[in-house]
Amino acid sequence: MNSGGQAEENFLYRRLAEKIIRQINSGALRVGERIPAVRKASVQEGVSISTVVQAYVTLESLGFVEARPQSGYYVRSRREHPRPEPNASKPSGAIKKVDLNNSPEQVRAAWLDSDLVPLGAALPAPELLPTVKLNRISVALSRRAAHVMSVYNLPPGNFELRRQIAKRSLDWGCTLAPDEIVLTNGATEAMSLALRALTNPGETIAVESPTYFGILQLAESLGLKIVEIPMNPRVGMCLDSLENFLKNRRIAACVGIPNFNNPLGSLMPDENKRRLLQMLGEKNVPLIENDVYGDLYFGETRPLAAQSFDSKGLALLCGSFSKTLAPGLRVGWIAPGGFKAKIEKLQMVGSLSTPALPQMTIAEFIESGLYDRHLRRLKTAFAAQIEKTAQAVAEYFPENTKITRPQGGFVLWIELPKTVDSVKLQQAALAERISISPGSLFSANGKYRHCIRLNCGHPWSNRLNEAIKTIAGLLSLIKK
Amino acid sequence: MNSGGQAEENFLYRRLAEKIIRQINSGALRVGERIPAVRKASVQEGVSISTVVQAYVTLESLGFVEARPQSGYYVRSRREHPRPEPNASKPSGAIKKVDLNNSPEQVRAAWLDSDLVPLGAALPAPELLPTVKLNRISVALSRRAAHVMSVYNLPPGNFELRRQIAKRSLDWGCTLAPDEIVLTNGATEAMSLALRALTNPGETIAVESPTYFGILQLAESLGLKIVEIPMNPRVGMCLDSLENFLKNRRIAACVGIPNFNNPLGSLMPDENKRRLLQMLGEKNVPLIENDVYGDLYFGETRPLAAQSFDSKGLALLCGSFSKTLAPGLRVGWIAPGGFKAKIEKLQMVGSLSTPALPQMTIAEFIESGLYDRHLRRLKTAFAAQIEKTAQAVAEYFPENTKITRPQGGFVLWIELPKTVDSVKLQQAALAERISISPGSLFSANGKYRHCIRLNCGHPWSNRLNEAIKTIAGLLSLIKK
Repeated sequence: MNSGGQAEENFLYRRLAEKIIRQINSGALRVGERIPAVRKASVQEGVSISTVVQAYVTLESLGFVEARPQSGYYVRSRREHPRPEPNASKPSGAIKKVDLNNSPEQVRAAWLDSDLVPLGAALPAPELLPTVKLNRISVALSRRAAHVMSVYNLPPGNFELRRQIAKRSLDWGCTLAPDEIVLTNGATEAMSLALRALTNPGETIAVESPTYFGILQLAESLGLKIVEIPMNPRVGMCLDSLENFLKNRRIAACVGIPNFNNPLGSLMPDENKRRLLQMLGEKNVPLIENDVYGDLYFGETRPLAAQSFDSKGLALLCGSFSKTLAPGLRVGWIAPGGFKAKIEKLQMVGSLSTPALPQMTIAEFIESGLYDRHLRRLKTAFAAQIEKTAQAVAEYFPENTKITRPQGGFVLWIELPKTVDSVKLQQAALAERISISPGSLFSANGKYRHCIRLNCGHPWSNRLNEAIKTIAGLLSLIKK
Repeated sequence: MNSGGQAEENFLYRRLAEKIIRQINSGALRVGERIPAVRKASVQEGVSISTVVQAYVTLESLGFVEARPQSGYYVRSRREHPRPEPNASKPSGAIKKVDLNNSPEQVRAAWLDSDLVPLGAALPAPELLPTVKLNRISVALSRRAAHVMSVYNLPPGNFELRRQIAKRSLDWGCTLAPDEIVLTNGATEAMSLALRALTNPGETIAVESPTYFGILQLAESLGLKIVEIPMNPRVGMCLDSLENFLKNRRIAACVGIPNFNNPLGSLMPDENKRRLLQMLGEKNVPLIENDVYGDLYFGETRPLAAQSFDSKGLALLCGSFSKTLAPGLRVGWIAPGGFKAKIEKLQMVGSLSTPALPQMTIAEFIESGLYDRHLRRLKTAFAAQIEKTAQAVAEYFPENTKITRPQGGFVLWIELPKTVDSVKLQQAALAERISISPGSLFSANGKYRHCIRLNCGHPWSNRLNEAIKTIAGLLSLIKK
């Protein structure tokens, strides 16, 4: 899509910077090691001196390398902050009807106030999204295919986008066919359809604890009970706990975010995914897998979907483009395994059709190769933003603060001293025009009231730094 | 939006033609009467001779007037076909769990095959819709407001469109505020949200019989029971029956299409609407009112919404732009009366956000005055298309066929001899590449199997005439 020398250069320096970041992240380049000299890199990579310099300056600004005078660029000590990670969570283990107060809606509404410092909603900064390119595609398509306005786009939705998602599914270990995918109004509709297809009011589902509050709200609106499963902040769901629970109890479904749980950023290892699917398979319990953060990995390779270990059609995989491309286009999808007919019918009966144009737009964006290029840039930005935020929290927050080490996505989970009431903290922060998410949103059992989730979707800035400092100052004023 | 003399002329002749059609429909001009002479009309209306001629030729082609040599134009005998209307329906009156077979989905899928003669789905012809103008607005907006792609459009949705709907609500006797409206993914989502907000599985709702099968499918998917209320093909729901039923039974909601029931085209008179709301109000039973055809009236004035007679916040009014503007844009709405908080929360939890651009596009289309002008043209076309279809049916179908007299919308309901199995007829017609809707879709009690619904959303053509003739020919082959 790029044309002309300038655009080409642009692309080359980014590619070089990304390559070096990958080498740093994988450990091939270690802290204190020198990265290739500018001239050498120029020859090795077959790019101009100025391209290499531009790449190195970018790496420096992102905090990956530092320039030493008359010497060159060195991998920087990541200034690994001294704060420990949170311990594994210990939810009550009781089965409980979900009964939330209304705060999640109020929180969400407040989040969208664009004047607030955006540490609340888990949303990427608009300026990191390829709005101009998407828009160009959309305009061209709406000229070429104006007729889509006057016809229905019935479930399962636009074929071309389903084909693109199917192709991409190889990356996460699935080999989906276009016909195994149903396009939805964001992952929220996907999750809603899955829960409605699998559960009846009064039944119990297992959820991660902490987990994305949208799942808890869905459970509440469907009259479901939940059991909260302990989470390790690195590897996710504690499978021994789930296994124990399953010995005596029947659940209608297990709902999880194996790849970069929101809010923890944990990543379930492949062997755990395999064990989870086996465990659920033996009891014939479906898994509803939310993978909206899966494309936003910081490591070498795209993590597998837990669905890739499913041999019984019991896993329903939900994804979207809201966290990576365009929240406002409302394009998500579900690969519902053995439940496709039921999901498709539920969608048909409940909303008949989805808008075709956004689906066609994203299909063309992926097909042209722009999506992968965009993802590379976005992940680099998110990794840097998370690190900056964590460092600021480590610098300003009280001694016994704990901070997660997310391996993907763009949120950070902070465990504060037990005396802190994060709901009060949220209110105090709002008064300072800063939005944050109180930890209590992420459990239906009143847990995590001393925790907060911070959105790291925005480029680091002095404004964000000041906001973290302000929150730290408020902490001394807020007691339970 | 129009500019230049040609466009202005275009507008003037249409306005004159519409005026005369209104006079004919209201009885001010009777069959056999002469309409004003061309010269006289030119002076009276202050338009050119050629404009009047163009208007009269249009009226002639629509079948409203006929030219008599050396004499002028006369209101034509509408060739009122001799077929009687169907009698009032007599559904069983039993309370019944809805248990449909899968055919509605299959039917809907077949409908969208654009190669079929389009007598099946209730959809306007794409060429009658202002796709080019909508597209122009959409493209301009997506340039001006590209950012809407990268943010959520939370319930209740775009303010400007809610404001336009609120302004229009005066026409149907309501005085809605923008904040009393929630925008949805078509009226289907509106109806789904309403039923989910008001009912629990196992409860009973009252529905019209026959009624739009989407309502029956929703009831089925929510595990509801229904009672079918008899319908008069002119005035709609038989209120005595409903009243009798309500004496002994509790229902969770009543669901109806007072303005141009689909499939009957019946129009509930104002006094009946008033009585309905009073009757339901006394028992505290909510009304879910589907008004997607309300703007498509053939008479002098927009029929009132039943909601306009609601004083207790019990009526939930659902509308959309799918039948009049752009089915593919997926823009509908609900004015949920006293249930707004619940509806808004259900939508937030179940789909989080709706796409903003289609909502903004329609808001601008309405604001510019284009919508009202488009509706006038569309209604004229639909009235003529219904009449042509009815005449062809009367001409080709067997003697004891009954045909409705819709007063708005664009579907026709045909009652065939009892020996006809319309499901078999549908299959035979599909083999001839013609789509129709079998009557059995419109009841959950196995009624109306000898009826069919015909879509009259497409301009009359020889192809349609031949299709009706073909269906008539198939009738002799199809027996129960």
